[in-house]
Amino acid sequence: MNNAFYIQGQFTIVKQGTVFLTIKRIALLKLVKHLGSINAASKEMKMSYQQAWHFIKEMNETSPLPLVIRKRGGANGGGAEITQYGEKLIAEYERIQEAQKKFLDDQTNKMQSCFF
Amino acid sequence: MNNAFYIQGQFTIVKQGTVFLTIKRIALLKLVKHLGSINAASKEMKMSYQQAWHFIKEMNETSPLPLVIRKRGGANGGGAEITQYGEKLIAEYERIQEAQKKFLDDQTNKMQSCFF
Repeated sequence: MNNAFYIQGQFTIVKQGTVFLTIKRIALLKLVKHLGSINAASKEMKMSYQQAWHFIKEMNETSPLPLVIRKRGGANGGGAEITQYGEKLIAEYERIQEAQKKFLDDQTNKMQSCFF
Repeated sequence: MNNAFYIQGQFTIVKQGTVFLTIKRIALLKLVKHLGSINAASKEMKMSYQQAWHFIKEMNETSPLPLVIRKRGGANGGGAEITQYGEKLIAEYERIQEAQKKFLDDQTNKMQSCFF
Protein backbone atom coordinates (compact mmCIF):
# COMPACT_ATOMS: atom_id res chain seq x y z
CA MET A 1 0.00 0.00 0.00
CA ASN A 2 1.14 3.53 -0.70
CA ASN A 3 -1.63 5.17 1.28
CA ALA A 4 -0.86 8.45 2.99
CA PHE A 5 -3.47 7.75 5.68
CA TYR A 6 -3.52 4.45 7.51
CA ILE A 7 -5.07 2.91 10.61
CA GLN A 8 -3.03 1.85 13.63
CA GLY A 9 -4.70 -0.34 16.21
CA GLN A 10 -4.04 -1.90 19.57
CA PHE A 11 -6.04 -4.34 21.60
CA THR A 12 -6.21 -5.55 25.16
CA ILE A 13 -7.65 -8.78 26.48
CA VAL A 14 -9.72 -7.99 29.54
CA LYS A 15 -11.47 -10.13 32.15
CA GLN A 16 -14.36 -8.45 33.94
CA GLY A 17 -12.70 -5.04 33.90
CA THR A 18 -9.21 -6.34 34.79
CA VAL A 19 -6.50 -5.95 32.15
CA PHE A 20 -5.18 -9.41 31.29
CA LEU A 21 -3.02 -9.29 28.14
CA THR A 22 -1.56 -6.25 26.38
CA ILE A 23 1.18 -5.93 23.76
CA LYS A 24 3.58 -4.92 26.56
CA ARG A 25 2.66 -7.90 28.75
CA ILE A 26 3.14 -10.27 25.82
CA ALA A 27 6.59 -8.75 25.20
CA LEU A 28 7.41 -9.36 28.88
CA LEU A 29 6.21 -12.98 28.72
CA LYS A 30 8.33 -13.62 25.61
CA LEU A 31 11.42 -12.20 27.32
CA VAL A 32 10.80 -14.35 30.42
CA LYS A 33 10.52 -17.33 28.07
CA HIS A 34 13.80 -16.56 26.28
CA LEU A 35 15.82 -15.36 29.29
CA GLY A 36 14.38 -17.72 31.93
CA SER A 37 14.32 -14.92 34.47
CA ILE A 38 11.82 -12.23 35.47
CA ASN A 39 14.70 -10.02 36.62
CA ALA A 40 16.55 -10.24 33.29
CA ALA A 41 13.27 -9.72 31.39
CA SER A 42 12.36 -6.64 33.44
CA LYS A 43 15.79 -5.07 32.70
CA GLU A 44 15.33 -5.70 28.99
CA MET A 45 11.89 -4.03 29.19
CA LYS A 46 13.40 -1.09 31.14
CA MET A 47 10.93 -1.64 33.97
CA SER A 48 11.52 -2.44 37.63
CA TYR A 49 11.40 -6.03 38.87
CA GLN A 50 8.43 -4.97 41.03
CA GLN A 51 6.51 -3.72 37.99
CA ALA A 52 7.28 -6.87 36.00
CA TRP A 53 6.29 -9.09 38.90
CA HIS A 54 3.08 -7.07 39.38
CA PHE A 55 2.15 -7.72 35.73
CA ILE A 56 2.96 -11.43 35.97
CA LYS A 57 1.15 -11.84 39.28
CA GLU A 58 -1.93 -10.11 37.84
CA MET A 59 -1.86 -12.32 34.74
CA ASN A 60 -1.44 -15.49 36.81
CA GLU A 61 -4.31 -14.50 39.11
CA THR A 62 -6.65 -13.47 36.27
CA SER A 63 -6.00 -16.63 34.29
CA PRO A 64 -7.61 -20.03 34.94
CA LEU A 65 -4.05 -21.48 34.86
CA PRO A 66 -0.72 -19.76 35.63
CA LEU A 67 1.30 -18.35 32.72
CA VAL A 68 4.65 -18.10 34.55
CA ILE A 69 6.11 -20.26 37.29
CA ARG A 70 8.97 -19.09 39.49
CA LYS A 71 11.62 -21.67 40.29
CA ARG A 72 13.41 -21.10 43.57
CA GLY A 73 16.98 -22.09 44.41
CA GLY A 74 19.87 -23.03 42.11
CA ALA A 75 23.05 -21.13 41.28
CA ASN A 76 21.25 -17.97 40.13
CA GLY A 77 18.80 -17.84 43.00
CA GLY A 78 16.00 -19.25 40.92
CA GLY A 79 14.54 -18.43 37.56
CA ALA A 80 11.16 -18.40 35.92
CA GLU A 81 9.53 -20.28 33.11
CA ILE A 82 6.50 -19.98 30.91
CA THR A 83 3.92 -22.72 31.27
CA GLN A 84 2.46 -24.54 28.27
CA TYR A 85 -0.70 -22.57 28.89
CA GLY A 86 1.31 -19.34 28.82
CA GLU A 87 2.83 -20.37 25.47
CA LYS A 88 -0.64 -21.04 24.14
CA LEU A 89 -1.83 -17.57 25.17
CA ILE A 90 1.19 -15.88 23.55
CA ALA A 91 0.41 -17.74 20.30
CA GLU A 92 -3.27 -16.80 20.58
CA TYR A 93 -2.45 -13.13 21.16
CA GLU A 94 -0.18 -13.16 18.11
CA ARG A 95 -2.86 -14.85 16.02
CA ILE A 96 -5.26 -12.03 16.93
CA GLN A 97 -2.54 -9.44 16.14
CA GLU A 98 -2.17 -10.90 12.67
CA ALA A 99 -5.93 -10.98 12.12
CA GLN A 100 -6.12 -7.37 13.33
CA LYS A 101 -3.38 -6.28 10.93
CA LYS A 102 -5.36 -7.80 8.03
CA PHE A 103 -8.58 -6.20 9.27
CA LEU A 104 -6.97 -2.75 9.60
CA ASP A 105 -5.23 -2.96 6.20
CA ASP A 106 -8.59 -3.82 4.68
CA GLN A 107 -10.25 -0.90 6.49
CA THR A 108 -7.41 1.41 5.40
CA ASN A 109 -8.15 0.51 1.79
CA LYS A 110 -11.88 1.10 2.26
CA MET A 111 -11.20 4.45 3.91
CA GLN A 112 -9.22 5.90 1.00
CA SER A 113 -12.22 6.72 -1.16
CA CYS A 114 -13.50 8.93 1.66
CA PHE A 115 -10.28 10.80 2.30
CA PHE A 116 -9.40 11.99 -1.18
CA MET B 1 -21.95 -13.11 24.76
CA ASN B 2 -21.35 -14.21 28.29
CA ASN B 3 -17.61 -14.56 27.87
CA ALA B 4 -15.44 -13.82 30.88
CA PHE B 5 -12.54 -12.75 28.63
CA TYR B 6 -13.07 -10.25 25.87
CA ILE B 7 -11.02 -8.05 23.58
CA GLN B 8 -11.03 -4.26 23.79
CA GLY B 9 -9.54 -2.33 20.90
CA GLN B 10 -8.73 1.19 19.90
CA PHE B 11 -7.51 2.61 16.64
CA THR B 12 -5.89 5.79 15.41
CA ILE B 13 -5.84 7.18 11.88
CA VAL B 14 -2.32 8.34 11.13
CA LYS B 15 -0.74 10.25 8.26
CA GLN B 16 2.98 9.72 7.80
CA GLY B 17 3.63 9.41 11.51
CA THR B 18 1.29 12.27 12.52
CA VAL B 19 -1.77 11.37 14.57
CA PHE B 20 -4.85 12.46 12.62
CA LEU B 21 -8.01 10.98 14.16
CA THR B 22 -8.47 9.30 17.55
CA ILE B 23 -11.57 8.48 19.56
CA LYS B 24 -10.91 11.59 21.68
CA ARG B 25 -10.54 13.87 18.65
CA ILE B 26 -13.77 12.51 17.15
CA ALA B 27 -15.55 13.25 20.45
CA LEU B 28 -14.18 16.81 20.30
CA LEU B 29 -15.35 17.26 16.68
CA LYS B 30 -18.84 16.03 17.56
CA LEU B 31 -19.06 18.48 20.46
CA VAL B 32 -17.91 21.36 18.23
CA LYS B 33 -20.62 20.29 15.78
CA HIS B 34 -23.35 20.26 18.42
CA LEU B 35 -22.24 23.29 20.45
CA GLY B 36 -20.94 25.46 17.57
CA SER B 37 -17.98 26.57 19.68
CA ILE B 38 -14.48 25.25 20.31
CA ASN B 39 -14.49 26.90 23.72
CA ALA B 40 -17.75 25.21 24.81
CA ALA B 41 -16.55 21.87 23.35
CA SER B 42 -13.22 22.07 25.20
CA LYS B 43 -15.02 22.68 28.52
CA GLU B 44 -17.26 19.67 27.90
CA MET B 45 -14.12 17.58 27.20
CA LYS B 46 -12.45 18.95 30.37
CA MET B 47 -9.48 20.16 28.33
CA SER B 48 -8.09 23.66 27.88
CA TYR B 49 -9.09 25.76 24.86
CA GLN B 50 -5.41 25.67 23.83
CA GLN B 51 -5.39 21.86 23.84
CA ALA B 52 -8.63 21.66 21.87
CA TRP B 53 -7.39 24.22 19.36
CA HIS B 54 -4.08 22.35 19.03
CA PHE B 55 -5.99 19.16 18.14
CA ILE B 56 -8.22 20.96 15.64
CA LYS B 57 -5.32 22.84 14.06
CA GLU B 58 -3.37 19.58 13.69
CA MET B 59 -6.36 17.84 12.10
CA ASN B 60 -6.98 20.75 9.72
CA GLU B 61 -3.31 20.85 8.69
CA THR B 62 -3.01 17.07 8.27
CA SER B 63 -6.18 16.82 6.21
CA PRO B 64 -6.47 17.64 2.50
CA LEU B 65 -9.48 19.83 3.46
CA PRO B 66 -10.27 21.56 6.79
CA LEU B 67 -12.56 19.78 9.26
CA VAL B 68 -13.45 22.82 11.37
CA ILE B 69 -13.83 26.47 10.37
CA ARG B 70 -13.75 29.28 12.93
CA LYS B 71 -16.23 32.08 12.39
CA ARG B 72 -15.10 35.43 13.75
CA GLY B 73 -17.35 38.23 15.03
CA GLY B 74 -21.00 38.09 16.14
CA ALA B 75 -22.50 38.43 19.58
CA ASN B 76 -20.48 35.59 21.10
CA GLY B 77 -17.14 36.60 19.64
CA GLY B 78 -17.36 33.99 16.91
CA GLY B 79 -18.06 30.30 16.84
CA ALA B 80 -16.88 27.27 14.93
CA GLU B 81 -18.50 24.82 12.58
CA ILE B 82 -17.72 21.44 11.13
CA THR B 83 -17.25 21.32 7.37
CA GLN B 84 -19.04 18.78 5.18
CA TYR B 85 -15.68 17.06 4.86
CA GLY B 86 -15.39 16.96 8.65
CA GLU B 87 -18.83 15.36 8.87
CA LYS B 88 -17.76 12.77 6.32
CA LEU B 89 -14.68 11.89 8.36
CA ILE B 90 -16.71 11.54 11.59
CA ALA B 91 -19.07 9.15 9.77
CA GLU B 92 -16.12 7.22 8.34
CA TYR B 93 -14.45 6.91 11.74
CA GLU B 94 -17.71 5.60 13.20
CA ARG B 95 -18.11 3.13 10.35
CA ILE B 96 -14.64 1.75 11.16
CA GLN B 97 -15.53 1.64 14.88
CA GLU B 98 -18.55 -0.49 14.09
CA ALA B 99 -16.54 -2.80 11.82
CA GLN B 100 -13.92 -3.09 14.56
CA LYS B 101 -16.53 -3.99 17.14
CA LYS B 102 -17.75 -6.83 14.90
CA PHE B 103 -14.17 -7.95 14.24
CA LEU B 104 -13.28 -8.00 17.95
CA ASP B 105 -16.50 -9.78 18.95
CA ASP B 106 -15.69 -12.42 16.35
CA GLN B 107 -12.11 -12.73 17.64
CA THR B 108 -13.41 -12.94 21.21
CA ASN B 109 -15.53 -15.91 20.22
CA LYS B 110 -12.60 -17.61 18.45
CA MET B 111 -10.39 -17.01 21.48
CA GLN B 112 -12.64 -18.82 23.95
CA SER B 113 -11.61 -22.31 22.91
CA CYS B 114 -8.04 -21.41 23.81
CA PHE B 115 -8.73 -19.88 27.19
CA PHE B 116 -10.79 -22.60 28.84
